[in-house]
Amino acid sequence: MSGWVVIAGLGPGADALVTPEVTAALAEATDIVGYIPYVARVAPRSGLTLHASDNRVELDRARHALEMAQAGRRVVVVSSGDPGVFAMAAAVYEAVEAGDPVWRRLDIRVLPGITAMLAAAARVGAPLGHDFCAINLSDNLKPWTLIEKRLRLAVEADFAMAFYNPRSKARPEGFGRALALLQETCGDGRPVIFARAVSTPDESINIVPLPDATPDMADMRTVVILGASNTTVINGGLRPMVYTPRSVPVNGSVTG
Amino acid sequence: MSGWVVIAGLGPGADALVTPEVTAALAEATDIVGYIPYVARVAPRSGLTLHASDNRVELDRARHALEMAQAGRRVVVVSSGDPGVFAMAAAVYEAVEAGDPVWRRLDIRVLPGITAMLAAAARVGAPLGHDFCAINLSDNLKPWTLIEKRLRLAVEADFAMAFYNPRSKARPEGFGRALALLQETCGDGRPVIFARAVSTPDESINIVPLPDATPDMADMRTVVILGASNTTVINGGLRPMVYTPRSVPVNGSVTG
Repeated sequence: MSGWVVIAGLGPGADALVTPEVTAALAEATDIVGYIPYVARVAPRSGLTLHASDNRVELDRARHALEMAQAGRRVVVVSSGDPGVFAMAAAVYEAVEAGDPVWRRLDIRVLPGITAMLAAAARVGAPLGHDFCAINLSDNLKPWTLIEKRLRLAVEADFAMAFYNPRSKARPEGFGRALALLQETCGDGRPVIFARAVSTPDESINIVPLPDATPDMADMRTVVILGASNTTVINGGLRPMVYTPRSVPVNGSVTG
Repeated sequence: MSGWVVIAGLGPGADALVTPEVTAALAEATDIVGYIPYVARVAPRSGLTLHASDNRVELDRARHALEMAQAGRRVVVVSSGDPGVFAMAAAVYEAVEAGDPVWRRLDIRVLPGITAMLAAAARVGAPLGHDFCAINLSDNLKPWTLIEKRLRLAVEADFAMAFYNPRSKARPEGFGRALALLQETCGDGRPVIFARAVSTPDESINIVPLPDATPDMADMRTVVILGASNTTVINGGLRPMVYTPRSVPVNGSVTG
């Protein structure tokens, strides 16, 4: 039997957010590869080997998956959220490009998942309801100057923004610098949403005006959404209601 | 019984990409509201009323859903993809804000879905594997000058980009102007992905270098992804392999 690699998105946490396509791939797999807490979300069964590894070894993990597929195994590489958004899919293709030319002929597929920013957005309304960007705030793999440049340009473009990996124990300072930059360049009270562990028992949602946002409101499990200049908070609801309007008037406030 | 409104994402087309959460909401509904082709994706059953309406009546549709919920109905507003990305969620909150104050106390929830750009990205690898933006190219609700401004800033930020609603019969010219702007400002051969009707029987995928992209490659059912400056195409595979690396070297090409 010929092997394959599927890079699958498990969504943000809840089983009800895993697509049937991903569930079917997990049922056909002989091997599951991924970061420890994501592999822990796959139910053990006879005939299935779980290969859990630590964070920051993405390329090793990718190579391991490709080697097993080459040997005829059916391998699912699991990511949280969507595997194509700051997750394992890019690492697998990086390993393919740099690795054994035979790997290019392997059967490799990516199965999308509900990414954290869209699960978080849904919890509070529609803050990403118009043009937006997604930025990884970790400077492990890119220079901090590039992050700052992208933040400034995103403010100028008046995108709503979603920030992945805002803060970790190894990078305690960067998010504070990003927030200070945004507070200064935006200069208004647009909402910031701190969405932690959405759809898990640890879920918490915190919505504050940008001037009141502080670095300690985020951790490794938080995705942060910053509104555009016209993002609106509707008060008095049963649940949070934050949305970015679909329209910008011809003479609207978006200038510069 | 008290009514509710759920704004649900049906994903890009295939049943295997509908989350169990959305399937459960559809099973509890008394009424389905949405654009004709999306309502057609919900199986009729006894006790369920289907309210299909034409395009461009989003606010009427939203008000109708809110009125029915106020009257005690269990209403699912269906969107293709994710309801929070250029879809019905923002329209419902817009209607809430402008409408009867009683509507603010309704039970309104958004259920995320697999959005078109992530389904399209998965089909070809991981082109959105690093920082990216999503831009609606329709100028029905915003000035064209704002679209051009955002495109220029997104190129300067070196985001990968996903374009929704690139072209329709009513807007035949805009996408050509956008492409010309991108060809001139990018000035390189980075890949463009035209992904049409992903996960449906009509799916087609076309990957071309930016200088070879032409307006007729897109229509209403196409999502277009433009790589960042370092997005890479790996040749010789069983399937397309396009990815944006996770890392940018400190002295990399992203400057300006």
